[in-house]
Amino acid sequence: MADVAIIAGSASDEHIVEKARAVLKENNVLFDYAVLSAHRNPDELDEYVNSSDAKVFICIAGLSAALPGVVASRTKKPVIGVPVSGTLGGLDALLSIVQMPRGVPVACVGIDNGANAAHLALKILKALETE
Amino acid sequence: MADVAIIAGSASDEHIVEKARAVLKENNVLFDYAVLSAHRNPDELDEYVNSSDAKVFICIAGLSAALPGVVASRTKKPVIGVPVSGTLGGLDALLSIVQMPRGVPVACVGIDNGANAAHLALKILKALETE
Amino acid sequence: MADVAIIAGSASDEHIVEKARAVLKENNVLFDYAVLSAHRNPDELDEYVNSSDAKVFICIAGLSAALPGVVASRTKKPVIGVPVSGTLGGLDALLSIVQMPRGVPVACVGIDNGANAAHLALKILKALETE
Amino acid sequence: MADVAIIAGSASDEHIVEKARAVLKENNVLFDYAVLSAHRNPDELDEYVNSSDAKVFICIAGLSAALPGVVASRTKKPVIGVPVSGTLGGLDALLSIVQMPRGVPVACVGIDNGANAAHLALKILKALETE
Amino acid sequence: MADVAIIAGSASDEHIVEKARAVLKENNVLFDYAVLSAHRNPDELDEYVNSSDAKVFICIAGLSAALPGVVASRTKKPVIGVPVSGTLGGLDALLSIVQMPRGVPVACVGIDNGANAAHLALKILKALETE
Amino acid sequence: MADVAIIAGSASDEHIVEKARAVLKENNVLFDYAVLSAHRNPDELDEYVNSSDAKVFICIAGLSAALPGVVASRTKKPVIGVPVSGTLGGLDALLSIVQMPRGVPVACVGIDNGANAAHLALKILKALETE
Amino acid sequence: MADVAIIAGSASDEHIVEKARAVLKENNVLFDYAVLSAHRNPDELDEYVNSSDAKVFICIAGLSAALPGVVASRTKKPVIGVPVSGTLGGLDALLSIVQMPRGVPVACVGIDNGANAAHLALKILKALETE
Amino acid sequence: MADVAIIAGSASDEHIVEKARAVLKENNVLFDYAVLSAHRNPDELDEYVNSSDAKVFICIAGLSAALPGVVASRTKKPVIGVPVSGTLGGLDALLSIVQMPRGVPVACVGIDNGANAAHLALKILKALETE
Repeated sequence: MADVAIIAGSASDEHIVEKARAVLKENNVLFDYAVLSAHRNPDELDEYVNSSDAKVFICIAGLSAALPGVVASRTKKPVIGVPVSGTLGGLDALLSIVQMPRGVPVACVGIDNGANAAHLALKILKALETE
Repeated sequence: MADVAIIAGSASDEHIVEKARAVLKENNVLFDYAVLSAHRNPDELDEYVNSSDAKVFICIAGLSAALPGVVASRTKKPVIGVPVSGTLGGLDALLSIVQMPRGVPVACVGIDNGANAAHLALKILKALETE
Repeated sequence: MADVAIIAGSASDEHIVEKARAVLKENNVLFDYAVLSAHRNPDELDEYVNSSDAKVFICIAGLSAALPGVVASRTKKPVIGVPVSGTLGGLDALLSIVQMPRGVPVACVGIDNGANAAHLALKILKALETE
Repeated sequence: MADVAIIAGSASDEHIVEKARAVLKENNVLFDYAVLSAHRNPDELDEYVNSSDAKVFICIAGLSAALPGVVASRTKKPVIGVPVSGTLGGLDALLSIVQMPRGVPVACVGIDNGANAAHLALKILKALETE
Repeated sequence: MADVAIIAGSASDEHIVEKARAVLKENNVLFDYAVLSAHRNPDELDEYVNSSDAKVFICIAGLSAALPGVVASRTKKPVIGVPVSGTLGGLDALLSIVQMPRGVPVACVGIDNGANAAHLALKILKALETE
Repeated sequence: MADVAIIAGSASDEHIVEKARAVLKENNVLFDYAVLSAHRNPDELDEYVNSSDAKVFICIAGLSAALPGVVASRTKKPVIGVPVSGTLGGLDALLSIVQMPRGVPVACVGIDNGANAAHLALKILKALETE
Repeated sequence: MADVAIIAGSASDEHIVEKARAVLKENNVLFDYAVLSAHRNPDELDEYVNSSDAKVFICIAGLSAALPGVVASRTKKPVIGVPVSGTLGGLDALLSIVQMPRGVPVACVGIDNGANAAHLALKILKALETE
Repeated sequence: MADVAIIAGSASDEHIVEKARAVLKENNVLFDYAVLSAHRNPDELDEYVNSSDAKVFICIAGLSAALPGVVASRTKKPVIGVPVSGTLGGLDALLSIVQMPRGVPVACVGIDNGANAAHLALKILKALETE
């Protein structure tokens, strides 16, 4: 039983994933972690999202970062996206994650800022607790 | 008693606010609305944020859009930011909203995309309900 | 029986779709056309792609343009992507389409350049004919 | 009694702060220095600004650099902002600092250019002396 | 006897100049105004700057906006620069004005924000008065 | 007899060429390779393109990357372009390759993504086989 | 006998061409004018360049503006490039024209600035006269 | 007696100056070289430009690169500008150099491309010889 599910688009995003994990651990939040590409593992990704009981998803991806948007289109739960920097400094992933079409929102945080994705997840979970 | 508080940084952001309001109304969500600049009305803003019982904040601002970040630094609740476009197509507001420092996250949605801010607020509120 | 399948991410992309259609008609190429969002209609999109006998796909999308990449991850056929311009002049859609991860290529053409997507499809089809 | 107050948004901006300090020292200008984030220490920041007798403020910050604007909204004295570079080369901090709304100006200098912030402060202080 | 000297690089910048003038008039500040290009009228510009008794300069320019920097290199007084937008949304003028070399600072305000240039000049003049 | 012709604009693009070659070798595709600049070797380039029996061209170039477009203007076969990154992170080469005029399409893949150029060539060749 | 040859990449660049022509006419410089695309009319372009007795070339093009570079690779005479603006404000054409590889220089002037191309040609022709 | 005058805005541009010098030496062109900032040494710069008998100027500068434009405003001879890269990859210097106002052209070459400045100067000098 995990409250947060972290999905990275590629094993090379591990250094950003680690920042999110550290914040969640510090705050004793249970989480799952998987490396699943929206483009290379679409079916496994669907299955992972559908079978997860997490309350919030954190999706970490670089380049044409479709992962957060694809997850957001498959779940009713809030999805947080973290753009990962590359040769364009992360501008490509930032725009890919944040410029979602009407009706399928992603909550985008700063470039390479895995820690803030975890802090945002914490804020949402705390709101749940105080209900 | 409002579930969502919408704050616009300027009366000129009204056309984007309207997109958020329309989605919230359609979904029968109660909301408050205020025009308060982080730079021109800092004390009124503090008071508004502290006295609000909203579960989620939506902050809509253009240019050097400090509003969402300032609200995020004053509340433990989730804050959603909407960048408003100007001569740079909204890139200035987007970067000002999304590139928050570690520990003070803002959930940024797309440029001028007031509708998605409301949809994201709905996702968070629904998560609360299903608790 | 269509040789080319055109998919637009939104009905608002129609003016770019028309440029592609005009070139295909001029060259007597049979084509199908559907409006299907990668984010709002993922299942219909999968079904459309899987049941199509087109030899080439043209995907037209703006903002966080995940459509071409999602189609490319679902078919072994060549996928051509057309970025549609918005407040950022199309830079968002361009980067979302072209910066695909290793192994899932999209053939990106210029911003709003529906005509060139059709011309590229024609080049690929002509290569097939000369086999 | 300091003529200039230097505020950095983060301890990691120290290398840029040092450039400003060196110029002020060379010119025998008295200055205070504090590390206070607009987002993480809003109340301490308010207190620091209100209790300062500096004639000019220099605010140094990266990312979504709200610090100079927040200080400018809290004082009637001139505020100089220095954007600090990160993965986007400082474009994010530059736009966050310079694109202030009407009525709350910040005097922005170049990216990572702590020296010029000090030189600008000197020009303002010299104008005071010649009165 | 003017406290502020406004210089525009081109007669086509008049709409931005007007925003600065309106703020200065409202605040009963005396000002001079000249249209002098750093590139087309370098000698007249030198003479104007040297013979002026203004305490602050406001320089308004678009494109490769060398005007504020050239004035800053000719006077010991504070120089405020206003970038004017064109086909690149003002990014060209912004970078030309703000990225000054060490030792020759310009106080840059927002794109097309003539009002804030005047507000910044007012802050500097008020600091003088309270001496 | 090669199915794919790889052309690099400069010997310094070798590290990106290698990524394309590796994918083609893994898939047992025969290919030719030449270093020919559109600007420095225009006649040799024409000759190489005209005498080639390749079914698909892969053109790899940085800076003002005219190579893919020039090849596309000289052949009826599909041309794939790979932008190579430099001080601007590859934005210059990307825009030079993708923004082709109507009627002369280039299939652009991601910055430095030689592997995807090869994967796209494979998709086109497989389409040929299944005819 | 023309001293300057103006080449536009497309008939749609006519409004920029007119700015160059006006300056040349005012200064009584003889010039030729042709519309020839580097991509659509490569052979006519070669012939035009080789048979011209102009001392300076002015090449005007938008998008992936290969024209100036291709002309520069075909002649030993100085080539001036003018980027024409589109959805990206001319950044695409600017980078395509200015970022030429070592050994094949183009003299790039400002976006849409046909007048300055003519003024630069005049400076070069005057240098010739004073020999 | 030098045919080309090279001016660098700062001693830190030396590595780009060297590229220009190497090409001029290889081609036996006589040249002068000075380090003079448009902002820090305006009078020495004027004097240097006015007293020079060079036929072409090459001006190399980074950041808010006013040098080429200031020289162009002081001489009737052709001026070539070379943008030097910094935290923004040279985009600041490129726009500062190329976006000159009507009537004062600068011939801009690629970022850090001192070699092409020399090659362009050679093309202009050869045109002079063949007169």
